Amino acid sequence: MVRRYLLLSPGPTPVPQEVLLEGAKETIHHRTPEFVNILKETLEMTKYIFQTQYPVYVLSSSGTGALETAMVNLVNPGEKAIIVNAGKFGERWVDIAKAYGIIPVEIKLPWGAAVTPEMIEKAMKENPDVKVVFTTYSETSTGTVIDLENIAKLTKGTDVILVTDAVSGLLAEPLKMDEWGIDVVVSGSQKGWMLPPGLAFIAVNDKAYAKIEKCTNSRYYFDLRKYKKSAPDNPWTTAVNLIYMLNKAVKMLKEEGIENVWARHKLYGEATRAAISALGLELFSERPGNVLTAVKSPSVPYVPSSNLTKVMRDKYGVTIAAGQEPMKDEIFRISHLGYLTPFDIITGITALEFALSELGYKVEIGKGVKAAEEILFKGLVG
Amino acid sequence: MVRRYLLLSPGPTPVPQEVLLEGAKETIHHRTPEFVNILKETLEMTKYIFQTQYPVYVLSSSGTGALETAMVNLVNPGEKAIIVNAGKFGERWVDIAKAYGIIPVEIKLPWGAAVTPEMIEKAMKENPDVKVVFTTYSETSTGTVIDLENIAKLTKGTDVILVTDAVSGLLAEPLKMDEWGIDVVVSGSQKGWMLPPGLAFIAVNDKAYAKIEKCTNSRYYFDLRKYKKSAPDNPWTTAVNLIYMLNKAVKMLKEEGIENVWARHKLYGEATRAAISALGLELFSERPGNVLTAVKSPSVPYVPSSNLTKVMRDKYGVTIAAGQEPMKDEIFRISHLGYLTPFDIITGITALEFALSELGYKVEIGKGVKAAEEILFKGLVG
Repeated sequence: MVRRYLLLSPGPTPVPQEVLLEGAKETIHHRTPEFVNILKETLEMTKYIFQTQYPVYVLSSSGTGALETAMVNLVNPGEKAIIVNAGKFGERWVDIAKAYGIIPVEIKLPWGAAVTPEMIEKAMKENPDVKVVFTTYSETSTGTVIDLENIAKLTKGTDVILVTDAVSGLLAEPLKMDEWGIDVVVSGSQKGWMLPPGLAFIAVNDKAYAKIEKCTNSRYYFDLRKYKKSAPDNPWTTAVNLIYMLNKAVKMLKEEGIENVWARHKLYGEATRAAISALGLELFSERPGNVLTAVKSPSVPYVPSSNLTKVMRDKYGVTIAAGQEPMKDEIFRISHLGYLTPFDIITGITALEFALSELGYKVEIGKGVKAAEEILFKGLVG
Repeated sequence: MVRRYLLLSPGPTPVPQEVLLEGAKETIHHRTPEFVNILKETLEMTKYIFQTQYPVYVLSSSGTGALETAMVNLVNPGEKAIIVNAGKFGERWVDIAKAYGIIPVEIKLPWGAAVTPEMIEKAMKENPDVKVVFTTYSETSTGTVIDLENIAKLTKGTDVILVTDAVSGLLAEPLKMDEWGIDVVVSGSQKGWMLPPGLAFIAVNDKAYAKIEKCTNSRYYFDLRKYKKSAPDNPWTTAVNLIYMLNKAVKMLKEEGIENVWARHKLYGEATRAAISALGLELFSERPGNVLTAVKSPSVPYVPSSNLTKVMRDKYGVTIAAGQEPMKDEIFRISHLGYLTPFDIITGITALEFALSELGYKVEIGKGVKAAEEILFKGLVG
């Protein structure tokens, strides 16, 4: 069987060939006017992705580096931070806080649950001394997307800073940083950006920056004051070739139009959920988003998701993700992120039907695909 | 005039086309056995570059991120560290220490000076409570390379940890981590590695790791305990495409042979120094290495190096570096780092002769080139 590689994992995601080839261009010196102009143009364009007029800083790091950046620039050791923890990446906020002696005031929810504006309002009322709220827009470990627009209403116009981990959420779900009033938004290149891993982003509004300037926590590589001071240049040697790629990818995303990018992810999410339902499977999240779809592993017969992902990957070349940590074998996750065609969604569902069948779960071949195709047809053709 | 880009800057350096094209390969998932095997093979091979049997960890960051990693994993706030500071990158060690509340016991020397083993011995004797010494193998801001082999004899077999910033020094100067007894070696991809910026490296021996495990300093993204725990995999999403490139570049370097890589840089350094001397110019460093050659700007007439680098770059396509900070216009720096042919050295000297002449410094055209060519001929042909 000819086997073509398809990434349906919630990062890394497929990268367009024209973006990959940009990265193969000759490395030029990062402090030349030529390169600084590229960087400046690129960072200006990325504001559109965040829907902000405020600066976006690019870091050479994974998304976790940008999460740490947000935490250590906003909260001092010994201070408290409200943290929503409903999955692996909420847990990561907590871990970073603890690593820096910051006291997490956790809103701890079961994996798959979505924090509500009311829960955050309650935590803020109970902890009036806490001035920063850390959220996860799309919890990649569970497929849950929170009601960020309404959550932002709680902090907008107050002295409380709202930070959101949109590492996977940005581009896949609507996010209007300035209009909604989110103070800090973090993202990572290997998600909706259509880029390989290696870059992370942090957008910071003036309200947050004022707090960053006063923050005395220890930081150096991730010190945003250094980034602001050297902008649009980077305080450290920038990952030149990844910036070439970013420049190209953002141009493609701008040409598509951010509303269309959001709509594309929404359509793929709907198609996938329809397929899952047609196959008699259950969604894991109580508030599923369009970044990825998390599905409970079949129980009769039980198909551990690591078996499923292995067959899909090794036999059919389709990489989806199993669960993380406690949910490792209990859920599988199909991503809708990045450079995917409608036919990639169909391919993913087809491979899923094949693999489920092979592993003993009863599937009516074509039923999931038909359900997905109907949604895609309606969305794309009419 | 046809203008071809030539990077003679001490990072970024030229990247071979076959390495660039590796980076244009499809991004695959970082947690698959396929990718983890690539990462494992790559990290195993990098040990050869460090001449070590101990683990090498790869970070998605600039070299500065790896410097911070060394500092925050080895020294607690309130503790002292001996730091050699004889240039911009020695100063960076000091800045990182201060950012984390570590007390620098500085061996502060003028830019261009080289610390001696005796100076370090004295500092160690005067500060028996200090258990970590931070050095800069090649000080990129001054072109100085220190006598690391003899410095290592002072700490070998003691409870003092020797750390060296070999961001630019590795591959360009002989470095035998295990044989010499260096405990921690840091490097960065855009130097001798023949790679674009975006990756950094840290090699850690068991003696250093024992201290790292006990260190209570705050760190998360750069926490080496997490890297050790997940090795050969990376705790965070690895920069997949840069790892493809690293794999290819290290294979090329292994094929060339590390002694030959060192010899190549030495030959280019000698050729460049001969050219500089033939042009009546003076070296800046009291102990010049083969990473780069730092040259005092001409004084009669005075040619500020930023004018020189601008003409060389904008008119001839040859990027060398001016000085940094206090030495901005006082020195210029020609790199010998990375993927350079002997003819690139000749090109650099030719462009230097053209530009110096144009800026009013009296040059006998061809004199520098002849001096360089004689050295190259002797080294390569006989």
